Amino acid sequence: VTAGTAVTNRTAQNIPELLDAARAGHDRGTAKLISLVENGSADTRRAVATACAGSQWAEIIGLTGSPGVGKSTAVNALLSAYRDRDRRVAVLAVDPSSPFSGGAVLGDRIRMQHHALDAGIYIRSMASRGRLGGLATAAPETLRVLEACGFDVVLLETVGVGQVEVDVATHADTTVVLVAPGMGDSIQAAKAGILEIADVLVVNKADRDGAPRVAAELADMLALADRPPHAWHPPIVSLAAPAGDGLPELLHALDDHATWLTRTGQRQERRTSQAAAQIQGLALGRLRSALIGRDHGITIQALAAEVASGAIDPYAAADQLLGASGRLCRD
Amino acid sequence: VTAGTAVTNRTAQNIPELLDAARAGHDRGTAKLISLVENGSADTRRAVATACAGSQWAEIIGLTGSPGVGKSTAVNALLSAYRDRDRRVAVLAVDPSSPFSGGAVLGDRIRMQHHALDAGIYIRSMASRGRLGGLATAAPETLRVLEACGFDVVLLETVGVGQVEVDVATHADTTVVLVAPGMGDSIQAAKAGILEIADVLVVNKADRDGAPRVAAELADMLALADRPPHAWHPPIVSLAAPAGDGLPELLHALDDHATWLTRTGQRQERRTSQAAAQIQGLALGRLRSALIGRDHGITIQALAAEVASGAIDPYAAADQLLGASGRLCRD
Repeated sequence: VTAGTAVTNRTAQNIPELLDAARAGHDRGTAKLISLVENGSADTRRAVATACAGSQWAEIIGLTGSPGVGKSTAVNALLSAYRDRDRRVAVLAVDPSSPFSGGAVLGDRIRMQHHALDAGIYIRSMASRGRLGGLATAAPETLRVLEACGFDVVLLETVGVGQVEVDVATHADTTVVLVAPGMGDSIQAAKAGILEIADVLVVNKADRDGAPRVAAELADMLALADRPPHAWHPPIVSLAAPAGDGLPELLHALDDHATWLTRTGQRQERRTSQAAAQIQGLALGRLRSALIGRDHGITIQALAAEVASGAIDPYAAADQLLGASGRLCRD
Repeated sequence: VTAGTAVTNRTAQNIPELLDAARAGHDRGTAKLISLVENGSADTRRAVATACAGSQWAEIIGLTGSPGVGKSTAVNALLSAYRDRDRRVAVLAVDPSSPFSGGAVLGDRIRMQHHALDAGIYIRSMASRGRLGGLATAAPETLRVLEACGFDVVLLETVGVGQVEVDVATHADTTVVLVAPGMGDSIQAAKAGILEIADVLVVNKADRDGAPRVAAELADMLALADRPPHAWHPPIVSLAAPAGDGLPELLHALDDHATWLTRTGQRQERRTSQAAAQIQGLALGRLRSALIGRDHGITIQALAAEVASGAIDPYAAADQLLGASGRLCRD
């Protein structure tokens, strides 16, 4: 038994203790478990996943929108509202431009100070920068940890940039897309297809000029969308978060969607899709590791030199690499 | 022979013609070839890659930086400068937040009007949104197309958000990182590790307050970096692009780096690394397609339902999926 294995075993043995502490409302337990997911070895992550399997489902509410649309303010408003209902709430803020994970960065620091003494709240930032596949692995595992730690609601917040935005919808039960007046957002949202991922649309900063027009544009676009009669029709909520105007309507829309998810069996279906995405992410990660692993390093370098010199094209090289990696999938 | 195959065959037969047209300076040839890369079937893309293999190498200059740092202005200045040297220049602008590809969007439209009559210039925007792995496949293939079309310099421009930024450095011969005063950029750049990918650092908008301080901070950070004596030491250039102040210094820095790349053998090494990244991207794409393909759809759904219900954890499910996919790598 090497020292490394001993450390791993000790960590694995601690997981039930950490879960107990987290369930009792101790942030350090939650924080440590998430750090194991983010930084632990594959064995450690597997041990955490095993310990968390079969936990209650939280309401996972994804919130996304362009930078500057006011996501943090909206998330803070929801955080307070769900606390008023006496539910344990976690915020997982995924920042696709940040290389940092762990603890809280930027706006979250302020939020944490505000809520530092409330054991019913946990706030965590997670970097996704540099992670191939965006949220593909760490974020879903963290969601399972938060559920196992007993949180009733998870607000999954991310900047709406690139693939990460779509990933949020994949891993949330309800997806809220925020737009704001003066950002050309509604048009862009429609073009970007994010209307398709939205379960609830929020026109944020609704006290500003142009907000009613944005809401009207979104309504027009939704009317054009071809939805079957029994499908969910995303409501449009106008929110002026600091003052709280529109917050009851937003909560009502979220409650409606939660009820619809359960009534129609969509909740089960979404959970199954989320699990499928997570399984595929893990499997692809294993294939990727195998493909770029040491055993194939020499092969790849030799093929790359041939491609660089123009002797073969990259497709032929990929063929050869896959051919040379026949054992990959069973590693 | 199906209609689809007939179309593919006809497209493949057209590739040499399109290349000839492109080399003669006809934008439509270049545009059509890139569209084949972006939207074509795997067979079509392979045919384009085969036709382009063994072409001359262009100088591929990657430019990245936060939104608002003035990348487009800097790119325009370089574009004109390289045209003054009578080199054929292409701009490939990769937008990680855009769902659009093809033609020119936003600022590019203005640029294109300005240069519309110059056959020595080609400008193209490429969306990377929604593409797993960012630039992993379409952008490198497009770079090979531009080289085959006879461009001497390619300016590969992207917004510095997330993984895409790192990808730019992977696929460029020289990487220029732009920062600007008043954006907290230098600190953030250092933290984000982009100093490590920069071959040339540009303090853009150098006519603004605070620019000398930003340059000094960057110099301090570079001094702290531990570089071997014969390594490349990234110069810091101050640029006020509209007036052109600093442009000769930037060109000089780029020329220096190009000379260094060739003299040290680093150019060959970078080209090999680029090819390795491209081969891996293609191979992973194939594995991904195989993994989520129809044959395994039933397996994944069944496993996902078990994970959603908590009967097994996602790691165990991934094990089973990979086990059931033993033939994947040889498909």
